[in-house]
Amino acid sequence: MKPYKELSREELLTCKEELDRRYKEAQSKGLNLNMSRGKPEKGQLDMGMGLMSILDADCDMKSEDGTDCRNYGELDGIMEAKVLMSGIMGIQDPNDVILFGNGSLSTMYDAVCRSYVSGVLGCTPWCKLERVKFLCPVPGYDRHFAITEHFGIEMIQIPMTTEGPDMDLVEQYVKDDSVKGIWCVPKYSNPQGISYSDETVRRFAALEPAAEDFRIYWDNAYAVHHLYDNDQDEILDILEECAKAGHPDMVYVFGSTSKISMAGAGIAAMAASQRNLDSIKKSIAIRTICYDKINQLRHARYFHSMDAVKEHMRKHADILRPKFEAVLDVLEQELGGLGIGSWVKPKGGYFITFEAMDGCAKNIVRKCKEAGVTLTNAGAPFPYGKDPHDSVIRIAPSFPTPDELAAATDLFVLCVKLASLEKLLEESGGSHE
Amino acid sequence: MKPYKELSREELLTCKEELDRRYKEAQSKGLNLNMSRGKPEKGQLDMGMGLMSILDADCDMKSEDGTDCRNYGELDGIMEAKVLMSGIMGIQDPNDVILFGNGSLSTMYDAVCRSYVSGVLGCTPWCKLERVKFLCPVPGYDRHFAITEHFGIEMIQIPMTTEGPDMDLVEQYVKDDSVKGIWCVPKYSNPQGISYSDETVRRFAALEPAAEDFRIYWDNAYAVHHLYDNDQDEILDILEECAKAGHPDMVYVFGSTSKISMAGAGIAAMAASQRNLDSIKKSIAIRTICYDKINQLRHARYFHSMDAVKEHMRKHADILRPKFEAVLDVLEQELGGLGIGSWVKPKGGYFITFEAMDGCAKNIVRKCKEAGVTLTNAGAPFPYGKDPHDSVIRIAPSFPTPDELAAATDLFVLCVKLASLEKLLEESGGSHE
Repeated sequence: MKPYKELSREELLTCKEELDRRYKEAQSKGLNLNMSRGKPEKGQLDMGMGLMSILDADCDMKSEDGTDCRNYGELDGIMEAKVLMSGIMGIQDPNDVILFGNGSLSTMYDAVCRSYVSGVLGCTPWCKLERVKFLCPVPGYDRHFAITEHFGIEMIQIPMTTEGPDMDLVEQYVKDDSVKGIWCVPKYSNPQGISYSDETVRRFAALEPAAEDFRIYWDNAYAVHHLYDNDQDEILDILEECAKAGHPDMVYVFGSTSKISMAGAGIAAMAASQRNLDSIKKSIAIRTICYDKINQLRHARYFHSMDAVKEHMRKHADILRPKFEAVLDVLEQELGGLGIGSWVKPKGGYFITFEAMDGCAKNIVRKCKEAGVTLTNAGAPFPYGKDPHDSVIRIAPSFPTPDELAAATDLFVLCVKLASLEKLLEESGGSHE
Repeated sequence: MKPYKELSREELLTCKEELDRRYKEAQSKGLNLNMSRGKPEKGQLDMGMGLMSILDADCDMKSEDGTDCRNYGELDGIMEAKVLMSGIMGIQDPNDVILFGNGSLSTMYDAVCRSYVSGVLGCTPWCKLERVKFLCPVPGYDRHFAITEHFGIEMIQIPMTTEGPDMDLVEQYVKDDSVKGIWCVPKYSNPQGISYSDETVRRFAALEPAAEDFRIYWDNAYAVHHLYDNDQDEILDILEECAKAGHPDMVYVFGSTSKISMAGAGIAAMAASQRNLDSIKKSIAIRTICYDKINQLRHARYFHSMDAVKEHMRKHADILRPKFEAVLDVLEQELGGLGIGSWVKPKGGYFITFEAMDGCAKNIVRKCKEAGVTLTNAGAPFPYGKDPHDSVIRIAPSFPTPDELAAATDLFVLCVKLASLEKLLEESGGSHE
C-alpha cells in the first residue's frame, strides 16, 4: 500500500470507512488485554523457583567469610553477593559495590534523597538550594522522572539518538551549576532499547560539570537482558571510564536482579568510587542495621557464577524473544511503508517504542483502551507525563501470552492507522466526517 | 556489707586495695566478651530455621487473594502478612497496617524523612522550617536519636518514670508548635524494660499538640518479647485510644519480626489511620514498586496464627530468661545493699539498665573495656550520646552464652565497685591514691 501521506482526501475517507468498520468489530469482541507493564510473565518466574529451595531448614547460613546471615550486621552486604552483582553490572571490583534492598528503584530514590537531605560529599543539601535540575534523556523511564519530580527537581529533556542521549546538549547543560544529575539507562534503554555507544560513554566520563555534586545516575537495569544469543550489545564500564578520565566520583551505577530472579524480591546494588561509598555507608547506617542478607545468600548460592546467570537469562530470552517478534512482525506487516510510524527493533530489555505521527499518541492509546487493550499512558516516558510531540508509545510485550500479544497488536495497528487517518484528514482541511 | 557511703575514708582505701588486686587479676585473664549488642544468639536463630523451608521450589507462590508473590505489585503488602503483623503489634484491624522492608528502623527513618521532604498531610515540609524538635524519653534507643540528629532535629529529653515518660512534661512541651514528634518504646522499653501504664497511654492519646503534624512514633519493638509465661506486661492499643480521644491521625505505630524470625531478614510494618496511610502510600509509590512479598508470604505461612507466634516466643524466652537472670543474680548478690547502683528487673525486651552513682558510668565502661568486656558506650541511650548524670549503662545479655555472661557480669560489678570507690574517695577530698 502507498504511504498514507500520498493518499488523496477521497482515498483517505474510503480507507477510514473500512477501518471504522473493523474497529467496531474489534470493540464487539470484548478484549481485555494489557501491554502496559514491564513485568515478567509466570514462565520467567517459574524458572527461578530453585531460589526457593536453595536454602532450607538444615543448611549452613554462613556466608563465605563466616558471617551468620540470619543476624544483624554487614551493612554493605556479603561478599559473594557483591561478586554476583558486580558480574551482572559489569563492574570489575566487587569492592566497588554495596548491596541494598529488594529493588533498584528505592536504591535510586534513596540516592537522590540523601543528596536532598544531607548533600553530596560536603556540598549544600539540595533542599537548601533555590533550584536543582536534572537532565532527562527522552523518551525515558517514567519512574525516574517521578522521583525527580517528587523532590521538586526541575527536569530538562535531552533527546535520545541511536547512540544514546544527545551529548552535545548534555555537555552544554552541565555548565549550569544547578544541574545536579542525569538519568541514564545505558543498555537496552527503557523504552527504546538503545545501548549507548562507546563514544557516548566516553563523553559521559569526560564531562566537566560546573556542580561538584553532579552525578550520572547510571541505571544498568538490563545489563544481562539480551534477547539474542549472537547479537548482543555491550557497553563500556562507566565506573572505570570515569576513573580514567579523572572523575572517579561522578557516577552512581545501579543494578538489581528484579528481572533476573524475582520481581520485587530480588537484591539491588550500587557501584561507585570508594569516596562516594564511604559517605553513603555513613548515611545508610542511620537508616538501617543491614539489608536482607538471607536473600543475598540465596541469590549468591543460586546464581553461583556468571555462566549460571547467562544460562538463566538465555531461558528468559527464549520466552521473551517470540513475544517481541510477534509484536514486531505485526508492526512490520501492517504498518511497513505507510509512513505513519517508526520503531526500533530492540536486542534486549523489556520494551518496544513506537513513534507515531506527531499528535497521534494519545488518540491511539485512547482508541486501544476503548477496544479493550491497555497501553502505557501516552506521555509517560516524558518528564511530567508530557510528550511535546504526542508521538511516543511504549509497548511492553513481556507479560501477555503470544496469542494475546498478537490480538493486542492487531488492534494496536488498527488504531494507529485510524488515528493517523484522522490526523491527515484534519490536516487536509475540514472535519474528517 | 555496709553501704559504701557509710564507709570511712580508711575503710574505702582498704576496700579499694583489695579490688585493685582483683581487677589486675581479671585483666590478666585476657577476657574478650561483649554485652553491648541487642542481637539474638545463635539458638534463637536456629529456632526459626523452619522459615527457610516453608517455601520450596514446588510450592504455590500465591497469596490468599491469588496474588503471585513473585511479581511486582501490592505496594502495601499481602493481607495474610498484615494479619500477622497486626496480631503482633496489637492492632485490631489488619487494614490499618501496611508492610515495609526488612526492619522497622528504616520504616521509622523513612517516616521522618517523608515529613522532612514532603511534610505531613499538607503541612510545611520540615526541611523548610527554621526549627523542628522531638521529645526523647531518656534513657532511650540510640538509633532513634541518631535518626532525629541526622535530620537536624533538636532533641528534648523527657525523663522516664516507672509508668513511662513523664507525661506532665510531655503535655507541656507539645504546646510548642515546633515540637513535631516523640519517640516511644511503649512495651519493655529500650533500655529499661518499662511498659507504659494505661494512664500513660491514655494521656498520650489525649495530647493536644500545637503542631498539626505532631506524631507519636510508637515503636512497639518488643510487643511479644516476654521473658515469663505468667508475668507479662500488656499495653493499651494506642491507635484505638487515639481514635477514641478524637486524634486518630496522631500516632504512627511501628513493628517488625526482627527479633521474632531473623534479625535483619524479617518483615516490618506500620499501623496508622487511613488518612495517614493513604498519604504514606502515595509517597512510597514513588520510592518502590513493592516490598519483598515472598518474605511476607514466608512469614505468614510459618507464623500462621498468633498461637504459633506465642509458642515461638516462649522458646525464645527459654533461652533469654536464664541469661537475664544470670546477670541479675550477680548484680543482686554483689551490689545489693551497697547503695552504688540500681536496676529494674525487666519482664521482657532485650536489655537491663544499670544506674550507677552520678559521674561513674563512663569510668565503669572504660574499666570493663580495659579488662576485655565491651559494654554499650556510656551515654548512648541519650540524645547526642550525652548522659547528663553520666550514670546509665545499658546491658545487653542476649548474645553471649550464660557462662560468658557470668564472667562478664563478675567483672562488671568489680568495675562498678572500683569506680564508685574512686568517686567517693574523690568526694571525700584529696586524690584516691
